[in-house]
Amino acid sequence: MGWNADLYMRFEIERTKPARDLLAALPTDAFQSIIDLGCGPGNSTGLLQKAFPHAQLVGLDSSKEMLIKARQALPDIPFLHQEITQWVKEHAQKAPLYDLIFANAALHWVPDHATLFPALLSCLKPGGLLAVQMPDTLEEPSHKLMSQIAKTFASGHYGQDAQALRTAIAPPQAYYDWLFPKAATIIMWHTRYYHMMPNIHAILEWIKGAGLRPFLSPLTEEEQKHYLTLYHYALQDAYPEQKDGQRLFPFPRFFLIAQK
Amino acid sequence: MGWNADLYMRFEIERTKPARDLLAALPTDAFQSIIDLGCGPGNSTGLLQKAFPHAQLVGLDSSKEMLIKARQALPDIPFLHQEITQWVKEHAQKAPLYDLIFANAALHWVPDHATLFPALLSCLKPGGLLAVQMPDTLEEPSHKLMSQIAKTFASGHYGQDAQALRTAIAPPQAYYDWLFPKAATIIMWHTRYYHMMPNIHAILEWIKGAGLRPFLSPLTEEEQKHYLTLYHYALQDAYPEQKDGQRLFPFPRFFLIAQK
Repeated sequence: MGWNADLYMRFEIERTKPARDLLAALPTDAFQSIIDLGCGPGNSTGLLQKAFPHAQLVGLDSSKEMLIKARQALPDIPFLHQEITQWVKEHAQKAPLYDLIFANAALHWVPDHATLFPALLSCLKPGGLLAVQMPDTLEEPSHKLMSQIAKTFASGHYGQDAQALRTAIAPPQAYYDWLFPKAATIIMWHTRYYHMMPNIHAILEWIKGAGLRPFLSPLTEEEQKHYLTLYHYALQDAYPEQKDGQRLFPFPRFFLIAQK
Repeated sequence: MGWNADLYMRFEIERTKPARDLLAALPTDAFQSIIDLGCGPGNSTGLLQKAFPHAQLVGLDSSKEMLIKARQALPDIPFLHQEITQWVKEHAQKAPLYDLIFANAALHWVPDHATLFPALLSCLKPGGLLAVQMPDTLEEPSHKLMSQIAKTFASGHYGQDAQALRTAIAPPQAYYDWLFPKAATIIMWHTRYYHMMPNIHAILEWIKGAGLRPFLSPLTEEEQKHYLTLYHYALQDAYPEQKDGQRLFPFPRFFLIAQK
């Protein structure tokens, strides 16, 4: 067989897989102007550039650190430093410029989806597409345990503050009702990826890179150690070993494509 | 924008979408010999032929009616008339011939997955892939209501017999443990598609074409009418109207790709 199996399988479990899945659901020869909202270090922007080499493509993120990486990786693409909420507020009133708004793993950090999602449609040209992927993990053991352990610390309510940074993903029915007055079609699906992890440490590292940060950063160094010990033990029960010692780490994500 | 939006959106909700999604997760330039298990009228076989035009491709199904349609649609592809269980039994003992076994919406009709799945790997050449998609709907309102309504009929246990035709999808953890001794890698995901349906009648028509048949066929004509009236009412509550009158019909499916 003429292909590198190792590479194929490794590629599958990368974090860019959901962005690829979202991209794969779009038409292939379409867009003239694209914005990648919450582009981070430019992974998704790079995928968009490859998929639509003739489109005018812009990236946007609120993190300067991320944008430094994105500009290094993709020097010929303009990147804007702005909050998504602010960008939407400004652009929803103007003549729409874009025919694809791509937002991969970004909008779960933006509040008030009932206002945000229709406003995003306002930023699209007629016939344009809004393509969104958001982690939908708040009901997963990994996330519930974060709050539960936070509650055992003296500093009381800090877990709730940490939780509040994340916007809970609403049921698909809600997004549908928010969007339909302005949308010609709405396509939605949930995908629950089962990541194969060699051990609890690997699961912990994954979570540290994302949802765990707001729960750790308000703690002292000593408290952080204590938190991580408790969390490590709790994860062991929540994600039991398979017969070969690996552990399955389910990761649910919500996808939405709406056409104006 | 240079594409037919109508066509794109219609294509999305076709029943072949899950087969396309399964196919999209495979490497693109790979296989020499492929079998499409449970090929039905050849929809998935046609997709495989397009994706891998240089591969030797065979379809297999237990329904003569389906194979007549498949042979009409794809006259240059050989189709075998056989039960999947029987085919696997024969081929698991022989020198393996295939480097892709594709089974789209088929194996949920085949019993004993703990035996079936490892045996399927035995039918693959080393490095070959098993690619499976199965509807995972037994816990959905659409399916639970089928059994509940069956219980209200005099002919007692017939609902259980109808249910028994379907093999319940095991948790991903179970497939992993059944496969890992023979598999180099196992990739799994659940996707819950949200189909937009114009009314309950459309949902009912969808279900009639698949899971409802074993619940209807043992009944008299009069009983069938009664069953469908009850079922229609129950569906109305289970799949409520959106603000624009449409109804969302969630349809969960389990995907598995294992490499020998």
